[in-house]
Amino acid sequence: MTEQTAIDEREAAASDRLDPEDAGRALTAVESLLARHRARFVELVERDEQGQALKHEPAVDYLTELRWVLEDMHPADVAYVLEALPVDDRLEVWKLVREVGSSHDEGEILLEVSDSVRETLIGAMNRAELVEAVESLDADEVADLAPDLPREVVEEVAAALPLEEREQLRAAMSYPEDSVGARMDFEMVTIRDDVTLEVVLRYLRRFDALPDHTDQIFVVDRDERFMGALSLQLLVVTEPEREVKDVMQQDVLQLGPLDDVGDAAAAFQRYDLVSAPVVDAAGKLVGRLTVDEVVDVIREEGEEQVLAGAGLREEEDIFSNLWDSIRNRAPWLLLNLFTAGFAAWVASRFDATVEKIVVLAFLMSIVAGIGGNSGNQTMTLIIRSLATGQVTPTNVRRLVQKELLVTLMIGLGGGAIAGLFAWALSGSLGLGGVMWAAMLLNLLVGASVGMAVPIVRTRLGYDPALGSSVLLTFATDTMGFFIFLGLATLFLL
Amino acid sequence: MTEQTAIDEREAAASDRLDPEDAGRALTAVESLLARHRARFVELVERDEQGQALKHEPAVDYLTELRWVLEDMHPADVAYVLEALPVDDRLEVWKLVREVGSSHDEGEILLEVSDSVRETLIGAMNRAELVEAVESLDADEVADLAPDLPREVVEEVAAALPLEEREQLRAAMSYPEDSVGARMDFEMVTIRDDVTLEVVLRYLRRFDALPDHTDQIFVVDRDERFMGALSLQLLVVTEPEREVKDVMQQDVLQLGPLDDVGDAAAAFQRYDLVSAPVVDAAGKLVGRLTVDEVVDVIREEGEEQVLAGAGLREEEDIFSNLWDSIRNRAPWLLLNLFTAGFAAWVASRFDATVEKIVVLAFLMSIVAGIGGNSGNQTMTLIIRSLATGQVTPTNVRRLVQKELLVTLMIGLGGGAIAGLFAWALSGSLGLGGVMWAAMLLNLLVGASVGMAVPIVRTRLGYDPALGSSVLLTFATDTMGFFIFLGLATLFLL
Repeated sequence: MTEQTAIDEREAAASDRLDPEDAGRALTAVESLLARHRARFVELVERDEQGQALKHEPAVDYLTELRWVLEDMHPADVAYVLEALPVDDRLEVWKLVREVGSSHDEGEILLEVSDSVRETLIGAMNRAELVEAVESLDADEVADLAPDLPREVVEEVAAALPLEEREQLRAAMSYPEDSVGARMDFEMVTIRDDVTLEVVLRYLRRFDALPDHTDQIFVVDRDERFMGALSLQLLVVTEPEREVKDVMQQDVLQLGPLDDVGDAAAAFQRYDLVSAPVVDAAGKLVGRLTVDEVVDVIREEGEEQVLAGAGLREEEDIFSNLWDSIRNRAPWLLLNLFTAGFAAWVASRFDATVEKIVVLAFLMSIVAGIGGNSGNQTMTLIIRSLATGQVTPTNVRRLVQKELLVTLMIGLGGGAIAGLFAWALSGSLGLGGVMWAAMLLNLLVGASVGMAVPIVRTRLGYDPALGSSVLLTFATDTMGFFIFLGLATLFLL
Repeated sequence: MTEQTAIDEREAAASDRLDPEDAGRALTAVESLLARHRARFVELVERDEQGQALKHEPAVDYLTELRWVLEDMHPADVAYVLEALPVDDRLEVWKLVREVGSSHDEGEILLEVSDSVRETLIGAMNRAELVEAVESLDADEVADLAPDLPREVVEEVAAALPLEEREQLRAAMSYPEDSVGARMDFEMVTIRDDVTLEVVLRYLRRFDALPDHTDQIFVVDRDERFMGALSLQLLVVTEPEREVKDVMQQDVLQLGPLDDVGDAAAAFQRYDLVSAPVVDAAGKLVGRLTVDEVVDVIREEGEEQVLAGAGLREEEDIFSNLWDSIRNRAPWLLLNLFTAGFAAWVASRFDATVEKIVVLAFLMSIVAGIGGNSGNQTMTLIIRSLATGQVTPTNVRRLVQKELLVTLMIGLGGGAIAGLFAWALSGSLGLGGVMWAAMLLNLLVGASVGMAVPIVRTRLGYDPALGSSVLLTFATDTMGFFIFLGLATLFLL
């Protein structure tokens, strides 16, 4: 890369006009400046070792340039870059960020990064720095960070908060992780219903700015009970002489602090909302949920399902340390090892049969594998339907019938192909027939387990996705071997 | 269910206060009313057959009650209910919805439902009904529906549009599926920069309502070129005497109509946006993207990845017809059948070995299976990192090193456990050693393929997720058999 393109990049990264590629460009710029800074350092050390004088040179100071770049970046872009850097580079950049940025930006960055990256960043800060960064945040944001912060830092920050905010922090930290309460914020603008819009407008002009995502202001009575909402859109299109109570909307989505945040997110998506009031059991307005949190929730839910599908407990920092990665992955692999071992043991009960017809050994994994694949398709679709709440006691029987019928058709067709293959490989028509039957039966096993496990887990109040795939593979492997070798023992010996 | 609870449900579903459970309650209410209507109908027919008079009875007419429920429901909730009903119930409810609802609601519902459900609903409408429902929508919404509508309907609707909207429809339909252009709308409020906020407020009061998700109005020059944005929040907190050009923000995210909508969604999430202007190459404001579309995009992306992981081409209507389901699932199963067949053929080349040591037959699928599981974990993480753009030419080498090291550690540990199991099952220490080595090697195969396939596919410009898992299983199955049986042939015979 030439000097010129580096400067172009810096300028692009620093330009006023934001565009979707900003974060990616910033990453490239930071990486290349870091690399050049390193290369220069190595060069200087080498020259020093060769006895060449380290005189003052008019060299480009890449580190200074990097500071400029970081200074101009949006905190969310800094967070993005930090995520993508190997740990040592990340900590070096984080040090520069803290030299040039405000403590508020530091707090924002800590909020933006993933849990595992946050851990590395927090580990590099001392207590005073942490307190400074965290105390610049709102109560709900402090609550989000609290689980990852040293206890003393949270206490020190809490002690310094005004009474109302300390109360909010306490409340936010008390709600369960997946509840609306844990995700809401407290930055609501509230008004009374007996004033005119003119008065509301005058009131609002006393603010320097409204909280982010204020698309509506909330109407409450003397006891802070929620009465309705006035959207800014209505406020600006309506004649200022009218009173709030005549204009406000009452049919707005109200959330409870203990509502499941996934359900709330689905409601935001259904009704295309930007914000919603959070109202407690007594009707008191206690907070609001905004669409930026909802977007995060939806993204996280998608990620969780993808990760759970591969047996990963959580998102990994791509440069997490070895031990964290192993802890994240090993439990599921170990579980699979045990189920595969059990299936192998079941199959080994038929060793007399396999000894006589060796080709069975090579065909049996096809039966097991395709049963698992097909069951996984059924299970994935059922888990999705369960997640949206569209599987009901009324329609579940028809759903089961349909799935079994689809599997039967696929089993008849796919089993025939597998049977032909077995016939060709072994030269035995009987073995082809056994293959066909075993395939069909194991596909039905896969479909049944693929439906039963998530449905039963949901009924019992568990997450349908977690662990279901291990149970499925266990069933299709074990039953696949058992059915295939069992039929072969019955009909071919 | 008693009469009373049904009425409670109806009232809950119809209450002004929206909450996240509304859709679910509506579904239960509709299901139970439909079931009771059916039961009543059967009863009447039976009585008729038994010769009992069908005299006018003061019976509850469940169908009328169902109409009331549907009339009070939010279109998005109706869409939700339609998704969850078996096809015959769905069409019956859809008929009632069209009797009681406005054609605008019908259009909204068609927009909300999934592609496959939309197909069934459109199939039940005649041309005139479709035209009426569709022409009540905005140009960008018509464009969204167009691919699923009969050609003549789109033409008839387009012909009836005013020139400007017809032009917008043509533009929206011309952009590629995953572009910002295909997702943007045209409902922007624009102003000039040389007026005061007072003038802007007066101008806005001439609207009955602003378009949904108007959090900012756009400032353009005489040639419709984008100059900046004025947020409603700023508009209401700022003194009305000030001029737009002094107050407007210029550092807002600007999108191009050809930008990838996934990148745009990531930017919305990073910068917590509600709307963003879409500006063409000449700087002209051509549309806007809003957060409700972004929420849909993020949800769809998550769904696609989950479905692709199970080898499903698309989301299925849970009550889609058999043939659609088979078409959705069979190709991937067939592909897996071929790769499993190939792996079986490779293994069968070692039949002399297996004939001598039968227990190999039962252990070989463990080696293949765990290699596939572990490779899938690696692949899932890499695909996620690739999707966020955080894998760069600079860090990819460190990433590969780290993955191989993690796999090596897991392989040493997991391989040892598998080796002990093999030893126990066979009584041969040598076989335990072969198991250990084969497991370790096949885990490394899985990790290598799990990284290489998505990275290479991304470099070549393909989607990294699609098809990767078939290639991975192919590699870990074939190589697992080959390595294990090969080592056994070398060392145990």
